[in-house]
Amino acid sequence: MMTVPQACAYLKEQENILILCHQSPDGDTLGSGFGLYYALLAMGKQAQVVCSDPIPPQFSYLLPEAMPQIDPQCVVAVDVADPQLLGDALSCWADRVDLCIDHHPSNRRYAARTLLRPDAAATAEMMIEIIRGLAVDPDQRIANCIYTGLCTDTGCFQYSNVTSHTLRTAADMVDLGAQAYRINRKMFGTKSKARIAMEREVLDSLVYAMEGRIAVIAVTGEMLERTGAIESELDGLSSIPREIEGVKVGITLREKPGGFKISVRTVEKINAAAICALFGGGGHARAAGCFIGEPLEQCRKKIIGAAKAACEEAGL
Amino acid sequence: MMTVPQACAYLKEQENILILCHQSPDGDTLGSGFGLYYALLAMGKQAQVVCSDPIPPQFSYLLPEAMPQIDPQCVVAVDVADPQLLGDALSCWADRVDLCIDHHPSNRRYAARTLLRPDAAATAEMMIEIIRGLAVDPDQRIANCIYTGLCTDTGCFQYSNVTSHTLRTAADMVDLGAQAYRINRKMFGTKSKARIAMEREVLDSLVYAMEGRIAVIAVTGEMLERTGAIESELDGLSSIPREIEGVKVGITLREKPGGFKISVRTVEKINAAAICALFGGGGHARAAGCFIGEPLEQCRKKIIGAAKAACEEAGL
Repeated sequence: MMTVPQACAYLKEQENILILCHQSPDGDTLGSGFGLYYALLAMGKQAQVVCSDPIPPQFSYLLPEAMPQIDPQCVVAVDVADPQLLGDALSCWADRVDLCIDHHPSNRRYAARTLLRPDAAATAEMMIEIIRGLAVDPDQRIANCIYTGLCTDTGCFQYSNVTSHTLRTAADMVDLGAQAYRINRKMFGTKSKARIAMEREVLDSLVYAMEGRIAVIAVTGEMLERTGAIESELDGLSSIPREIEGVKVGITLREKPGGFKISVRTVEKINAAAICALFGGGGHARAAGCFIGEPLEQCRKKIIGAAKAACEEAGL
Repeated sequence: MMTVPQACAYLKEQENILILCHQSPDGDTLGSGFGLYYALLAMGKQAQVVCSDPIPPQFSYLLPEAMPQIDPQCVVAVDVADPQLLGDALSCWADRVDLCIDHHPSNRRYAARTLLRPDAAATAEMMIEIIRGLAVDPDQRIANCIYTGLCTDTGCFQYSNVTSHTLRTAADMVDLGAQAYRINRKMFGTKSKARIAMEREVLDSLVYAMEGRIAVIAVTGEMLERTGAIESELDGLSSIPREIEGVKVGITLREKPGGFKISVRTVEKINAAAICALFGGGGHARAAGCFIGEPLEQCRKKIIGAAKAACEEAGL
């Protein structure tokens, strides 16, 4: 395990640095990756950011105008907790990562050197310290990168991972010229027409059980066909049922080949993992998953039955 | 116009202080009001917070266990831009406000003394400076009050009014013990069943025009009856159409006696106020309103016609 000054000392010695982001890239892996990239370039080094998936268009403002390929002497993974998350296209680097910079408590320590801070809300919160440790003056581009990581990994400073340090780091980025409002609008204030259509479908599918203590939504293949929604447009739908007032168990059924993938979110006192274990699944106490290989109606009935039993057992 | 030190000097001299919040109370008027209340109590003064509407249950954590009536010698309005916003029950105080603390640029300067800072994201952002100026050490209760004002007036730090000072003030509140995550969940992470039902109705009502450049939703009396939603559960619905990708003009029709109240939100280049002026309404360049005294279909047709003309004129 490394400290920030150690990671900085190591990076100062490197010349051609390849920066790996995780697959299905989000604002934190991209913001941290490109933040580091611009800092290394400002130091006169060569660098390149790679990702096994295309970069979603809403993040295009993070990208440089051009990024020539390099012949890497050093490989840095950012926000990548597990080498499997590099994805197929980057799997060749899985056991050749020289430095991993990450904030996930589940980090697999797969790299030769690891800088891990599980109390950071985002890898970007660590990355700005590294950039300063490299004696680079963060410009607006870097500030936008770091701000993007901070706001996306915290649901715009809404989640439980936000600390006063996270908020102060965001304030610093705003002072450095980060276009916070423009970025917030891009990340949180815009929905595609397909996403809006999916929200409608999902709300149409909503059913309550046990006098509103259980809420179930479904995402079927038919809905996806009707709306044209793609995977990334389904983000966050499964949190809808749990956000409804009075709901103790929120359930999302997602059609997959041969049945339904089930996601269960619960309030305190009800163990989501125990509910899912009844169907061979598992997870955390408040969020867990399983698969039931049956048609929608049967799946719904079975998982509602298990959720009811759990509510009754908990006296809720 | 007063400065913070002047307002503090004035408050220090007062004994029995009545604090007025605005009607339809939100997190900022209540958070600022009760923040000041607890500070005055800590100074050994008597104080009371009043509002012409009942305080919505989600704000109950801001309230003291008991709040005896006082015989006021001094009246302070917080976050009240116009005496009309005091509401009927407090209208007797409208021309007797000794000090108004507010951040709305539209403040009517109706009070004997006004502390106005239009660049503050929330009145709460100013209130914590006053509390410190009164030499009160903010405790967790005060920190929760101030944090509530900050997060509710900024959509959880998402809107364009957020500055680095806003974010640093929030960080300070977290350090003082503000239960940011619990408050965020209450304010942004929970929706009533009636609200969810309204969202479904509203999405069912969504129609596009001009190849998706115009989006229109409707809120009818029938929908309110079906869902049982109340006024405060409609907050934010009118921003749905404008948040859809590609939409240049987002329109919300809200049934009122004799017709529909229409809210128009636009992107740059399209003047919402000009669209609404065609029907005798007005407002700002990006957000305006009007009333059309006709049935739903006719209203929709008329306002879409005006929006189309505006899009075409703007070359969008």
